[in-house]
Amino acid sequence: MLTERLNQKRQSTNLYEQVANHIQRLIEEGTFSSGDKIPSVRKLRDELKVSISTVMEAYRLLEDRGLIEAHPQSGYYVRTRLPKILSCPSISTMDIKPSQVNIADFVRMVLKDVGKRDVVQLGSLQPDPELVPFQRLSAILAGVIRRKKKESVMYDQIQGYKPLRVEIAKRLLSSGCTVTPEEIIITSGCMEAILFALLATCNPGDTIAIESPVFFNLLELLELLRIKAIEIPCHPESGIIIEALKNSIEDHPVKACVVNPNFSTPLGSLMPDKNKQELVSLLSEHNIPLIEDDIYGDLYFTPNRPWAAKAYDTSGMVLLCSSFSKTLAPGYRVGWIVPGKFKERIELAKSAGNYATATPQQMAIREFLIDGGYDRHLRKIRREYARRMELMCRAIGKFFPENTRSACPRGGISLWVELPKSVDSLELYKKAHEYGISFVPGPLFSVRRKYKNFIRLNSAFWSDKIEKALATLGHLAGEMTGR
Amino acid sequence: MLTERLNQKRQSTNLYEQVANHIQRLIEEGTFSSGDKIPSVRKLRDELKVSISTVMEAYRLLEDRGLIEAHPQSGYYVRTRLPKILSCPSISTMDIKPSQVNIADFVRMVLKDVGKRDVVQLGSLQPDPELVPFQRLSAILAGVIRRKKKESVMYDQIQGYKPLRVEIAKRLLSSGCTVTPEEIIITSGCMEAILFALLATCNPGDTIAIESPVFFNLLELLELLRIKAIEIPCHPESGIIIEALKNSIEDHPVKACVVNPNFSTPLGSLMPDKNKQELVSLLSEHNIPLIEDDIYGDLYFTPNRPWAAKAYDTSGMVLLCSSFSKTLAPGYRVGWIVPGKFKERIELAKSAGNYATATPQQMAIREFLIDGGYDRHLRKIRREYARRMELMCRAIGKFFPENTRSACPRGGISLWVELPKSVDSLELYKKAHEYGISFVPGPLFSVRRKYKNFIRLNSAFWSDKIEKALATLGHLAGEMTGR
Repeated sequence: MLTERLNQKRQSTNLYEQVANHIQRLIEEGTFSSGDKIPSVRKLRDELKVSISTVMEAYRLLEDRGLIEAHPQSGYYVRTRLPKILSCPSISTMDIKPSQVNIADFVRMVLKDVGKRDVVQLGSLQPDPELVPFQRLSAILAGVIRRKKKESVMYDQIQGYKPLRVEIAKRLLSSGCTVTPEEIIITSGCMEAILFALLATCNPGDTIAIESPVFFNLLELLELLRIKAIEIPCHPESGIIIEALKNSIEDHPVKACVVNPNFSTPLGSLMPDKNKQELVSLLSEHNIPLIEDDIYGDLYFTPNRPWAAKAYDTSGMVLLCSSFSKTLAPGYRVGWIVPGKFKERIELAKSAGNYATATPQQMAIREFLIDGGYDRHLRKIRREYARRMELMCRAIGKFFPENTRSACPRGGISLWVELPKSVDSLELYKKAHEYGISFVPGPLFSVRRKYKNFIRLNSAFWSDKIEKALATLGHLAGEMTGR
Repeated sequence: MLTERLNQKRQSTNLYEQVANHIQRLIEEGTFSSGDKIPSVRKLRDELKVSISTVMEAYRLLEDRGLIEAHPQSGYYVRTRLPKILSCPSISTMDIKPSQVNIADFVRMVLKDVGKRDVVQLGSLQPDPELVPFQRLSAILAGVIRRKKKESVMYDQIQGYKPLRVEIAKRLLSSGCTVTPEEIIITSGCMEAILFALLATCNPGDTIAIESPVFFNLLELLELLRIKAIEIPCHPESGIIIEALKNSIEDHPVKACVVNPNFSTPLGSLMPDKNKQELVSLLSEHNIPLIEDDIYGDLYFTPNRPWAAKAYDTSGMVLLCSSFSKTLAPGYRVGWIVPGKFKERIELAKSAGNYATATPQQMAIREFLIDGGYDRHLRKIRREYARRMELMCRAIGKFFPENTRSACPRGGISLWVELPKSVDSLELYKKAHEYGISFVPGPLFSVRRKYKNFIRLNSAFWSDKIEKALATLGHLAGEMTGR
């Protein structure tokens, strides 16, 4: 049957593609599961009566699609895919009106133990230092400043180091964005890009639309800038609900919209392409700038890199913000913004705000990008973060009380968990603290301090210690359900 | 007479101090002028009938006071002091009310050729790259990141690298400020410190008091943040006029005040200690935060480092901002703020704004500070910038039309020149551009675009080419006087 199917199509598409599609179906239908070895090249050649090179091409394609991986001296295996262990968390209800943001004191109070070394940190979204190529980066940085002593010490252009912008422009093609280096401005990380985007598009007292739940750093920024927020409900898997956003826009003078379409924090949701397109066209229609945070876009566990919403921008209304802080070097503080039609105001913000981003790191990251090490590095950390996300989801399924829910994201390092209604995450936070365990309680992700029975975990780390901490956390939560 | 004078006082103060004071008088009275050789140690011993070690102590003291300098294998010379070549520029008149700032487009239009390589740049206030110790800094940075691979790549504390804050705290003692490392927050340069200080103290729509003339980057920042400004007149030598500020405060709801007490740009003025003290007490009385920009404080040509206004702060109302960008490494983007009672809001701004300043440069600068090279370096560049300032003032006296005025600052790298009333500096700018010469026209330094017949020059560079450019500029200005 197999060979028949192939023979029928042999004329129309490439043979190796047909072979690849066939294997993909077998994986999707469950014939081969995560971690299974798939037939060897020789075996498949004999089965399908095709050439060795056709099978090899097919397997290469499946690797590109992220479905299989080669284990040296062993063969090809189905890549770990995230199981649907838990049901999806609930969708929040709509807020009626914009709120003044007043969260910073609350965040400070709650997170005062972050950074303490004796605590199992499931809180802040740090990448695992062991997955940061600090040896190579340091060697590259040292080499760069030896070769470019004067340039690395002096002021660079406000827009940032041109050769780095060239590389970023190239990489943006895989996000569906065709931009020139002149359309990019380097910032000191992604948050700075968002800060400048807000300064460029909003006045204090204005209202913007944000996702709910939303990362609390954005709330702090809104408080600082005295910008009001209206929280738009999000689906835990597909992100912001366009219909809800549409209603808000019609009811309120929304001046901008901040969205994290790819593996948002805390949800980890991934907006389908169709939704991204709708989002961009809805906002453009209403002449509302979209500030897009794509910081986790490269950490996909899906076969291909998801596109940025910016890819659908035809009117320059999308300001795309991202950085290398989650994939490469948090401490280097190198991010960027593609500001569309707001370029002049973003340049003003950068120039007046801190003149330029530090030069040496821009040079080092550019070298890391051009020597090809970055893609290899990304493949490695994606595989590893996917594995850890799965392990963490499984641990939650195993240790947490009944009716715990989580979407188990297909990218990023943020895991959003809904506990049974009777669990107060702030209470749980205090109790967990006594056991040396830290996470971020749900109410920090909302202007109105909703999500009382939710928690956010950092899924970037995995160890026996963390597994034990999750067991303890699950046990503590279980006690609070009163069962 | 000399020995008599000494004998009379011999009992009361240290003998070497008396000798030093005596020589200082001779310098001040003109017996010895800039560049003159003063008597050798042996000669003075014989003249004054004191011991060799007393004379050596006295000369050391005079060196500390910045009055003389040792030339190896040659002896001691009177340090170059700036001549009073030109009369002081005029003081601007008072503005009646706060103005919305709207300058960015004007700045962009005027300065569009900045950075072009074929132009003699007398405009932007870059330090001379030849006076930046890029060889050593690069070697130190390379060494640091080799030794601290992981720490240099990962996120550091929001407040910044603690060992660097320790060194900054030590150095602040010479500015009259006793602060702990916990009271310091590292920023990406001085402008970022000012940005955060404004975000921490003002709301958009608020009015702040600023110096007039004022550096245009501050005006751009105010435009970005939609903060109104009231321009307070300044004396070209002693800075902001306290009485004028007092009147403004009484007439308007001033929410903060930004002042550059030590070698402000563009004026180059130095506020006397008494004025600083009055400034701080006036503002504290009215509960108005003082945002102090001390970026040029270490570039003094005076005998001692001038104190910061912060030195007189007893209520925590002064936010002291500075950086290493003018003395050490512009491209490293390392500055700091001592925010007084506004620490929590500055931390929020830093955390929400760009999380932290890049780690590697903080480590490198700290190494540069602890190995003692920084003071030696500062002595060297101070001497050189003083020499260049003098050469530039002399050239202006020589080449520029009659009635040109300038205060010839005692520190910094900014020279403010008043041309005869009939010279329009924007016209001059256009003409100079044809000759490949760039400077910053006066109207950029005022919300209301005053200072039409003023220009700002960067005094950090000196060469035959620059001397020629000044001759050309003077000639062009002369033509515009119509004589």
